[in-house]
Amino acid sequence: MKDVDAILAANAAYYRAFAHGDSAAMGRVWADDDVSCIHPGWPVLIGRRPVLKSYRNILGNPNRERIEHREDTAMIFQDEGRVMCIEIIGTADEAVVLAATNWFRRIDGAWRMIHHQASPIAITDADLAPDPPPQLLN
Amino acid sequence: MKDVDAILAANAAYYRAFAHGDSAAMGRVWADDDVSCIHPGWPVLIGRRPVLKSYRNILGNPNRERIEHREDTAMIFQDEGRVMCIEIIGTADEAVVLAATNWFRRIDGAWRMIHHQASPIAITDADLAPDPPPQLLN
Repeated sequence: MKDVDAILAANAAYYRAFAHGDSAAMGRVWADDDVSCIHPGWPVLIGRRPVLKSYRNILGNPNRERIEHREDTAMIFQDEGRVMCIEIIGTADEAVVLAATNWFRRIDGAWRMIHHQASPIAITDADLAPDPPPQLLN
Repeated sequence: MKDVDAILAANAAYYRAFAHGDSAAMGRVWADDDVSCIHPGWPVLIGRRPVLKSYRNILGNPNRERIEHREDTAMIFQDEGRVMCIEIIGTADEAVVLAATNWFRRIDGAWRMIHHQASPIAITDADLAPDPPPQLLN
């Protein structure tokens, strides 16, 4: 499998563990060491134990929101790689859109997550149009 | 200089460039390649050019808020390292508190920023107390 396909598969496995409420699978997604996580609205959690504990709490909630991931973009450099993506939490008109960074390290040939951070997007790509169109003076 | 001191100095240089509104210094903080940034509320920006353009716009605003960084925590693995910290934006009772990840790569001996993401903290450490204290039954 190509590097980029492998890291995108690891990213998909993260969201699949979420969708299935599968804490054991989530444990396999994350690396053993050098782990950090910033859930939306949370302060940073550092270390595998507090991070996986937070996921057990989140995944154990039967009323947790659905999360979809879109626009996955992989950036790989040697044995470090990240997938930037959009998370859509909830459904239809109540959905919240987040910008997420999922950082992986290649360990014994497998991409394991070492960092996750998701933050709400308040402005859209259209708001970021880099320059105003040239003004017509006539 | 020890690795951890060097990466903390690179992190401090980022906030110093911010404080001084110094786009040239900000350009030296960031790496040339493999760069991404998620400002609070923004979608992801990928690539040195759009990232530095966003900083020029932010730093060029004379009314931009002050940012303090606190609780800097470095995590280093080989030539990759990140500093997790708290950002306090604004002053006194109007301050907003963010959880920030500043990711660096050691390139030609210098720690250069390859990723920044900051997200508002809505809950406090106290809300995250891992377990309730044992209940007294007598």
